[in-house]
Amino acid sequence: MTTDYNNKGKKMEQILAQDLQKYLHTEIISLYIVLEKELREGTRDPYLRLKIGDKTGSVSANIWSNAVHFNNIFEQGDVVKIKGMVKDYKGQLQLTINKIKLADPEDYNLGDFLATTDKNISTLGDTLFRFVDSIEDDNIKQLVKSVFEDVEFFPLFAQAPAAKSWHHNYIGGLLEHTVSVTTICDFAAQLYPLNRDLLIAGALFHDIGKVYEYRLKTVADFTNIGRLVGHISIGDHLICKKAEGINAFPSDTLMKIRHLILSHHGELEKGAVRVPQIIEAIVLHYADNLDAQTVGVKQLIETVKNENAEWTEFDRINQRFYYLK
Amino acid sequence: MTTDYNNKGKKMEQILAQDLQKYLHTEIISLYIVLEKELREGTRDPYLRLKIGDKTGSVSANIWSNAVHFNNIFEQGDVVKIKGMVKDYKGQLQLTINKIKLADPEDYNLGDFLATTDKNISTLGDTLFRFVDSIEDDNIKQLVKSVFEDVEFFPLFAQAPAAKSWHHNYIGGLLEHTVSVTTICDFAAQLYPLNRDLLIAGALFHDIGKVYEYRLKTVADFTNIGRLVGHISIGDHLICKKAEGINAFPSDTLMKIRHLILSHHGELEKGAVRVPQIIEAIVLHYADNLDAQTVGVKQLIETVKNENAEWTEFDRINQRFYYLK
Amino acid sequence: MTTDYNNKGKKMEQILAQDLQKYLHTEIISLYIVLEKELREGTRDPYLRLKIGDKTGSVSANIWSNAVHFNNIFEQGDVVKIKGMVKDYKGQLQLTINKIKLADPEDYNLGDFLATTDKNISTLGDTLFRFVDSIEDDNIKQLVKSVFEDVEFFPLFAQAPAAKSWHHNYIGGLLEHTVSVTTICDFAAQLYPLNRDLLIAGALFHDIGKVYEYRLKTVADFTNIGRLVGHISIGDHLICKKAEGINAFPSDTLMKIRHLILSHHGELEKGAVRVPQIIEAIVLHYADNLDAQTVGVKQLIETVKNENAEWTEFDRINQRFYYLK
Amino acid sequence: MTTDYNNKGKKMEQILAQDLQKYLHTEIISLYIVLEKELREGTRDPYLRLKIGDKTGSVSANIWSNAVHFNNIFEQGDVVKIKGMVKDYKGQLQLTINKIKLADPEDYNLGDFLATTDKNISTLGDTLFRFVDSIEDDNIKQLVKSVFEDVEFFPLFAQAPAAKSWHHNYIGGLLEHTVSVTTICDFAAQLYPLNRDLLIAGALFHDIGKVYEYRLKTVADFTNIGRLVGHISIGDHLICKKAEGINAFPSDTLMKIRHLILSHHGELEKGAVRVPQIIEAIVLHYADNLDAQTVGVKQLIETVKNENAEWTEFDRINQRFYYLK
Amino acid sequence: MTTDYNNKGKKMEQILAQDLQKYLHTEIISLYIVLEKELREGTRDPYLRLKIGDKTGSVSANIWSNAVHFNNIFEQGDVVKIKGMVKDYKGQLQLTINKIKLADPEDYNLGDFLATTDKNISTLGDTLFRFVDSIEDDNIKQLVKSVFEDVEFFPLFAQAPAAKSWHHNYIGGLLEHTVSVTTICDFAAQLYPLNRDLLIAGALFHDIGKVYEYRLKTVADFTNIGRLVGHISIGDHLICKKAEGINAFPSDTLMKIRHLILSHHGELEKGAVRVPQIIEAIVLHYADNLDAQTVGVKQLIETVKNENAEWTEFDRINQRFYYLK
Amino acid sequence: MTTDYNNKGKKMEQILAQDLQKYLHTEIISLYIVLEKELREGTRDPYLRLKIGDKTGSVSANIWSNAVHFNNIFEQGDVVKIKGMVKDYKGQLQLTINKIKLADPEDYNLGDFLATTDKNISTLGDTLFRFVDSIEDDNIKQLVKSVFEDVEFFPLFAQAPAAKSWHHNYIGGLLEHTVSVTTICDFAAQLYPLNRDLLIAGALFHDIGKVYEYRLKTVADFTNIGRLVGHISIGDHLICKKAEGINAFPSDTLMKIRHLILSHHGELEKGAVRVPQIIEAIVLHYADNLDAQTVGVKQLIETVKNENAEWTEFDRINQRFYYLK
Repeated sequence: MTTDYNNKGKKMEQILAQDLQKYLHTEIISLYIVLEKELREGTRDPYLRLKIGDKTGSVSANIWSNAVHFNNIFEQGDVVKIKGMVKDYKGQLQLTINKIKLADPEDYNLGDFLATTDKNISTLGDTLFRFVDSIEDDNIKQLVKSVFEDVEFFPLFAQAPAAKSWHHNYIGGLLEHTVSVTTICDFAAQLYPLNRDLLIAGALFHDIGKVYEYRLKTVADFTNIGRLVGHISIGDHLICKKAEGINAFPSDTLMKIRHLILSHHGELEKGAVRVPQIIEAIVLHYADNLDAQTVGVKQLIETVKNENAEWTEFDRINQRFYYLK
Repeated sequence: MTTDYNNKGKKMEQILAQDLQKYLHTEIISLYIVLEKELREGTRDPYLRLKIGDKTGSVSANIWSNAVHFNNIFEQGDVVKIKGMVKDYKGQLQLTINKIKLADPEDYNLGDFLATTDKNISTLGDTLFRFVDSIEDDNIKQLVKSVFEDVEFFPLFAQAPAAKSWHHNYIGGLLEHTVSVTTICDFAAQLYPLNRDLLIAGALFHDIGKVYEYRLKTVADFTNIGRLVGHISIGDHLICKKAEGINAFPSDTLMKIRHLILSHHGELEKGAVRVPQIIEAIVLHYADNLDAQTVGVKQLIETVKNENAEWTEFDRINQRFYYLK
Repeated sequence: MTTDYNNKGKKMEQILAQDLQKYLHTEIISLYIVLEKELREGTRDPYLRLKIGDKTGSVSANIWSNAVHFNNIFEQGDVVKIKGMVKDYKGQLQLTINKIKLADPEDYNLGDFLATTDKNISTLGDTLFRFVDSIEDDNIKQLVKSVFEDVEFFPLFAQAPAAKSWHHNYIGGLLEHTVSVTTICDFAAQLYPLNRDLLIAGALFHDIGKVYEYRLKTVADFTNIGRLVGHISIGDHLICKKAEGINAFPSDTLMKIRHLILSHHGELEKGAVRVPQIIEAIVLHYADNLDAQTVGVKQLIETVKNENAEWTEFDRINQRFYYLK
Repeated sequence: MTTDYNNKGKKMEQILAQDLQKYLHTEIISLYIVLEKELREGTRDPYLRLKIGDKTGSVSANIWSNAVHFNNIFEQGDVVKIKGMVKDYKGQLQLTINKIKLADPEDYNLGDFLATTDKNISTLGDTLFRFVDSIEDDNIKQLVKSVFEDVEFFPLFAQAPAAKSWHHNYIGGLLEHTVSVTTICDFAAQLYPLNRDLLIAGALFHDIGKVYEYRLKTVADFTNIGRLVGHISIGDHLICKKAEGINAFPSDTLMKIRHLILSHHGELEKGAVRVPQIIEAIVLHYADNLDAQTVGVKQLIETVKNENAEWTEFDRINQRFYYLK
Repeated sequence: MTTDYNNKGKKMEQILAQDLQKYLHTEIISLYIVLEKELREGTRDPYLRLKIGDKTGSVSANIWSNAVHFNNIFEQGDVVKIKGMVKDYKGQLQLTINKIKLADPEDYNLGDFLATTDKNISTLGDTLFRFVDSIEDDNIKQLVKSVFEDVEFFPLFAQAPAAKSWHHNYIGGLLEHTVSVTTICDFAAQLYPLNRDLLIAGALFHDIGKVYEYRLKTVADFTNIGRLVGHISIGDHLICKKAEGINAFPSDTLMKIRHLILSHHGELEKGAVRVPQIIEAIVLHYADNLDAQTVGVKQLIETVKNENAEWTEFDRINQRFYYLK
Repeated sequence: MTTDYNNKGKKMEQILAQDLQKYLHTEIISLYIVLEKELREGTRDPYLRLKIGDKTGSVSANIWSNAVHFNNIFEQGDVVKIKGMVKDYKGQLQLTINKIKLADPEDYNLGDFLATTDKNISTLGDTLFRFVDSIEDDNIKQLVKSVFEDVEFFPLFAQAPAAKSWHHNYIGGLLEHTVSVTTICDFAAQLYPLNRDLLIAGALFHDIGKVYEYRLKTVADFTNIGRLVGHISIGDHLICKKAEGINAFPSDTLMKIRHLILSHHGELEKGAVRVPQIIEAIVLHYADNLDAQTVGVKQLIETVKNENAEWTEFDRINQRFYYLK
C-alpha cells in the first residue's frame, strides 16, 4: 500500500551543498532550491542576490547579468538548475551563476531539498497500517481504511508536515507525529478503561486536516483554506464525508470521532472547537501534547551546533530557553 | 413557503394558569406542561410533588395516591392532561390531582406552554425569504434556497430557540435572531464596501447549527451532538453537504461562507473556530453581538415586575446589574 | 454652522509628490511635509537625510550643506518650503535641497499634506446636525447643541482623527466615525425598545475627548493629557461642564450620558471606565466596535497595492492577516 | 474644623443587644436597626420575621399581629423603636414585638447601630489636616483646602465607608484609609525622589469619590451614580470643579492630580482608568494596596471568634484562607 | 521491603454499612467512621445527628441522650465503636445509638473506612521498586533508594492520597499515580532521546511532598504546611536533604532533579515554580497531566450509578460534563 | 562585620571613559571592561570590533592586527588592559588598540566598571544589621544572624544585583533593595497589628536566593541554577539549612518564614510559589512591589539625558512611558 516516499523519481547528478568546498574555483552544474531571492540595486545595473541550497546546507549566490530577466522565471521555493563558478568571498563560499532555469520535477525528489523526517517513511506507514488493522469494531475499521487506503490522499498525508514552525515542520512530519500519538494512545489503552478502537481512530485522524492546511515549498506555509477554515474543520468535514460513504455508519460513533478531532487542542483559547468531554478525548489531547512538545524541544536542541553552549536559542512560542548539559 | 407556526393543530378547551383562581374549590380538566417533578416520602406513602403550568404562569400540585405508578408515566417537560381539585393552601393555590396522563400531541400547540417570540413567526419567515430573494449571485442564492426551502428543515429552524439561557431562549428565537442579524448586515452593506451577497448568506447561515444544538422541552437544553460537536461545526457540515449537492459550486465561495460560520464568535476563547479574516466576517461578528446582547438585556429588563425597582436582577453571565430608570 | 474644512486658506502653487517624475533634472520650489529627518555622518561633513511628501506620496531628499544649521530650524511633522533639484539615484527619484524654511501656515491646508477622510467633511457635518435636530428631549438637545455649536470646539472636532494607528487615523476621521456610529445607533433605535434621544446623544459624544487626545502632525500622536487623563475622562469632564451651564439639567439624565461615555469601550481591560449597565450603552458599544473594526480592516485592505496579493499585511493589533480575494 | 462624629446627637436610653439576656421574661422599650425583614405565611395569618440589632449584636424577633400593616411602615436598614417581650425559644433569645415605629433621627447616632472605625474620628481628622498643612505648593494647598474645608463635604467624607464588602467597610472607614495611605506616602517621600506635595494631594484625594459611591444603611451599598459613573470619575470631576474655582490653577498640576486619581487602581482590569505614568502614581498605587489589603485581612482575622481555629473563613475575593497561629 | 498496606492489623467483627438492612429492628455493635456530626436543638433537649459509615456506604444516626456529653468525646473523621438499634424512618434505615466511644486504632484498618485504591498496594510497591532498580546512574539510584527505602517515609507515601478532590483522592492514590506516571515516562524514554535515569527519578519524586500536604481523615484535607509551603517546595527540600546525605552528589544532577520537581505543573499559573526547561521536564509534565486528568475523569464516570444517565455530574474544576454512552 | 565593598583592592592608574576626549591623538594604557566583541570581515583580513568602557561611559575600539589571535584570549564581560591610540572618526572618539590582555583581578575593583548603587554599601550594611539586632524573638534572631553573619555569604549578598533588567540591576542593588523593603515593613509594623519579628526576618530573607540567581559580568545574567531552580527555591532551601543548624528551631516559625519567602511575589502568574496566607506576607508583598516598582521607574527616569524630553523611553515590561515634567 505504501510507496517509498524517500526515494521517488530518477534524479540527475547532484553536488550537495555541504560538498561545495571541494569545487572551489570550478564551474559546476547542479540543482538547488531557492531559499531567498532579492533584486538589488548595483552600482550600474541591478543584480540578483540568492540563497540556494539543499537539505545539507546553503550558500549565497549572485546573478550579475540579466538580473531583471532571470528574476521573472523562478520564485523563492522553486528548485532550479544552475550553472556557475564556485568562488571565495572574504573567506566564505559564494556562487556566481551564469545560467539558471526551473528544474524539471521529474528530475528530483523534493525530499532532497527540504528537511525530512529522519525516520523511514515506509516503516512509519507500515506501523500506521498495523494500527489500522488492530481496530476491532467493523464500522470504525472501515472508516479508517476508507481514509488511509485512499490512493490519492495517502501520498499527500505521508509527505505533509505537522506544523509550520514548531514541531515536525518537515516532510513526513505529519505521518511521524500521527504514528507517535497513536503509539502513546495505544499504550494508554492498556493503562486505563477506554474504548481503544475509538481512541486509535481519533489518534489516526486528529491532524488529517493538516494535509490541506500547509503548502510545501521551501518552508511550510498556510494555504488559504488553512487560514480561513483550519485543519480541524477540514478534518472534521473529511471524516463526515467518508462516513457518509459507508452504509449505516452509526451516528453516535461518528459524533464521538468528530468530537475527538474537534477537541484535541484541549482548550478553546488554544484552538479547540470543543473541550474534551469523553475520556478518550482527554487521553488524545495529552498524548498529542506530549509528542508535539517533546519533539519540538528535541528539534530546537538539535539545532544547537556549538558544543560549549549551555542553553538553546530562545523558544519564542513558549518563551524560554532549554538547558543542554 | 412558510407555515404559521404560531397556530398549529386543533386544541381542546384549556384553563390558563393565570385564570385558576376563578376555579377555587372546583374540579377541573385541563392540559399543562410539567415544569418540575419530585417523588417525596410522605408520612405513610410516597407522593408526587409537581410544578405545572403554561406560558401564563405555574402552580404547585400533588398526587397523593399511586404516586410511584404515576411517576413512571410522564417526565419533566411533558404536556399532560390532568383532572383535579383547585385548593387553597396557606393562601396559595394548589392542585390535588386525581388523574393524569400524557396529552396527545395532536391536541395542543407546544407554543401555548413554552415561551415564544412575541413577533409573528410567519412575518419573520417572509422577511427572511425576502433576504434570500435579494441575493444576486446565482450560486449563493441557490445554496441559501437549498437550505431554507428544505421542507423538513425549515419548520425545525422556525421553531428553534437561539440560546439556552441568555438571549432569544424561546420558540422562534433563532428565526427572530437570524432575521435581526441579517437586517443589521443589510444596513451595514450600505455603509461599507462589502460583498453583500456573501454577507447576507453568512448572516442567514451563522447559527443554523443551533437547530440541532438544543432540544425543546420545558426549557431549552443541549442535545448530545450540541455538546460534543457544537452548533458551529454542525452548521459548517450542513452547508458543505448542501453545497456538494449543487453542480460546480465555487470552492472559494464555499470557503468564505464556511469562514463566516466558523468565525462569527469573533475570538477563540468565545468559541470561534477561526478569528474573522475577511471584512464580511468582521461585520457579521459585531452584528451578531449587537443583536444578541441587546435582546439579552431587553429580556432581563422585561422580567422585572416591581415598578419601583431601580435595577434588574444580577446578570451572572456578564456579571452586572442593569439600571431601569 | 459648518465650514468646509477640506478647502481652507489660499495656497501657493504646489508640485504634488506623485508628479515629481515630470520634473527630473529640474529645479523646483514647492511645499512638503517632513515625514522623517536624520542627521547623518558624511565622509567629510554631516548631512541631513529627509523623507518629505504630501498626501499623494513621498520622496527621499538630502541637504548636503549647512546640515547642522538646517537641522535646527524645522522638525519632523513641519510643512516646509524647499528649493532643490530633482535627481535620479539608482533608478529612484531623489531631491537635493539647496534652500529650506518653515512654510507660512497661511499658505497651505494641512489637509493637502496629511491623509484626510475621503468623505466630504461639510456633508458629514450636515448629517451630524440633522441628528442633533432630531433629538426630542429639550434638555438633551440643548446639551448636544451647546457642544457642537461651540464655534471654537467644532472646527477642532471636525479636523480630529479618531485614532492614532488603527481606524480613521486621518483628518476628519473623528467626525466620520461619529456620524457612522450615530447612524448605526439610529437604525438600532428602530429595532429595539430604547431611549433614542439618550442613545443619539451618547453616540455623538462618545469620542469627543479625542479632540484633545491627539495632536495632528505628520501622523496623529498622543498629547500629554491624552496619555495621562485619556479621551474618556476628557470627554466626561467636558460634558459635565456643558451641563452645568444649562439651567436645571436633570442629574439622572446627565448620569446616564456620562455612563454612555464612560462605558463605550465595553470591558475594563479594553479601557472602559464602567461596563455598560443600561441598554443604550450596550447598543453604543457594539455600534462603535462595528464601525471601528470594519473601517480599520477596510483601511488595511486599501493599503494593498499588489493586485495579485491574496492577503493583507499582518494586522499587529488583532494578530491576523485578511484575505483579499 | 472637625467635629466629633462619634458622638453626634442626644440619644434615648438604649438596651444593647449584647445585654438582652438580662431582660429575659421582661418587657422592654429600645431602639434597634432592622437587619432583615420577611413577611411569612403563618398557620392562620401572616407574621413578620425580623432580625434586629445594634453594633453589639443581633436577635431574631416576631410580630404576630397586624403584620401586613407593620410591614409597610419600615424597611430593612431603618432604625426602629420597639416595645416587646424578651423570650427564650429552644435556648435562643427571641423578641415578641407588640409595638414598632420608625425612630426619630434626632434620637440616635447611626454609629451606634452600624460598624464604625475603632480609631477616633476626630483624631483621624486632625491628622488629615496636618497633612494638608504640610503641603508647600500654594496652588496645591489651596485646592486641597477647598475640598476638605468644605463644611458640607467633610462630614460626609468623615462618615463614609471605604468599601462595600472588603476593607474599611464601616463608618469612618474612608477617612481612616485616606489617613493611612497618606501616612505611607509621606514615608515613601522620604525614601524616594518625589514631588511630595503632588503625592500627598493625590493620596488625600484618591478615594474622595467614594463619598458618593456608597449609601450607608444597614450595610454599605452602591448608589446609582456609584454603579453608573463610579468613584474614580466622581472624584475626578469633583477635583476639576474645585480647581476651576481657583484663579489660574496650573493646568499641568491639575492634569497630574487627575492622573493620580484616575490611575490609583494600577491596572485597567482592576478598574484603573489610566495606568500609572508618573512616579508618584506608582507610589500611590502600592501604598493604597498595602493599606487596603492589610486591613482587609486584619478585619477577616478579627471576625474569627473560635480560639482554636487555625484558619480564617474563606476569602472569596482573593480565593484563599489565612493562617491564624 | 514493602508491606501489605491493604491488610494491616487484626480487626473486630464488623457489620458493613451495605449490610445494615439485614439487621433491621436489631441491636448491633460495630465500628464506623463519623462522616458528619451536628448538635441540634430538640423539642426538649439537644440531640446529636450523625452520618456514619464505612467504605461500603453510609447511614444517618441519632443520639438522643447525653448528646452534649457525647459531642465532646469524638470528632468528625474519627472511627467510633457504637451500640445501637437499626430502625426504619420513613422508608430509610436509621440508627438510634445508645453507646458510643472512640475505637482503638489497633482494632481496625483505616482502609476499611476510607476510599482506597482498587489496585493492590503491595503490587504497586513492587512495581515502583523495579523502576528504582532499573536506574543505571549510581548517584541517582542511591538518591532514589535513600528516599523510598526510608522505613518511616515509605509507609506514609504508600498510604497518602494524590489529591484532595480531583484525581486519586484516596488511600494509596499517591503511590498509584506515581507508578502510572513513571510507567508513562518509561515508555516515553523509548520514543524520544532522553536521559532515562533522570526522568525516572523525576517521575518517582514529582509528588512526594504530597505525603505531608494532606491529612487523612474522613476525606483528604490540607495540612498547615500543605497550604503555607505546598507539596512542591516540601518535596524539593526533602530531596535536597537526602542528596546532602550522599557523599559528593553531583550538583548539576541535583539541580536537574530539583528542576523536574519544581516544574512539573508546567505553567506558573497552574502552580509550577519554574516552567519546564529540560526535555525530561516536558515529558514529565505531560505524563503527569495524562494520568491525573484521565483518572480524574474515570473516577467521575464511576460515581454515576444511574444506568440511563448520558452525562456525568458537572465537573466544576474543568467546567464541563462528560458523555457516558 | 561589613567590609567596604565600594573600595576593595589597590588599583592601577585608570583613565575614565568620560575623560578620553582629553587624550585625543595620544597613546594610552588603561583598564576597561569589554562590553561587546565581534570578529568582522575586513577588506583583507578580519578585525575585531569592540565596545569597551567603565561605569562612566563607553567607546568603540578596533584591533586591526592579529584579530583572530586576540579574539581567543578574552571574552565579553572581561576586564582587559589595553594599549592604544585615541582617534577621532567622523566626529566620534575611537580607539585603535595595539596590545590587549586580561587584567589581573588584583588590580581593579569590578565596581569601577559596572554600575553600582549610589548609596554607600557600608552604610546600607550597618542599617541591615540594626534591623537584625532589633529582632526580639531569640530563635528568629539566631536564624537571621546565622545567614548574614556568614562571612562567605555576606560579601556575595552585598555585591549582588536585585534584578537582571528592571529595578536595582547593579552592584549592591540587592542589599539596597533589601534594606528599603525592610524599612517599609518596619514602618508598616507600627501601623498594623503584626508579628514584627517575623515580618522583619521575611523582609531580610525574601530575595536572598538572588545571590545565586545572577552572575555578575558586564550586565547581570542568569546562572544555570537561577534559571532551573530560581531565587525563591534557592532562598527557601538556604533558610531551611540554616534553621536545621539551630537547636530546636520551632517548626511553625520556620514554616511561616518559608511562607514569606515563597509567597512574596503575590500571585502564581508572577512567580509566587504560594499566595500570601498570613498578614505579614501581605505586607511584605506590597512593600516589595512598592520599592521595586518605584526604583525601577526612578532608574528609567534617570536614564533620560535630554532636558527637553517630556516622556521616558518606552518601558517594555510595563508597556508604558512615564511623564517627566
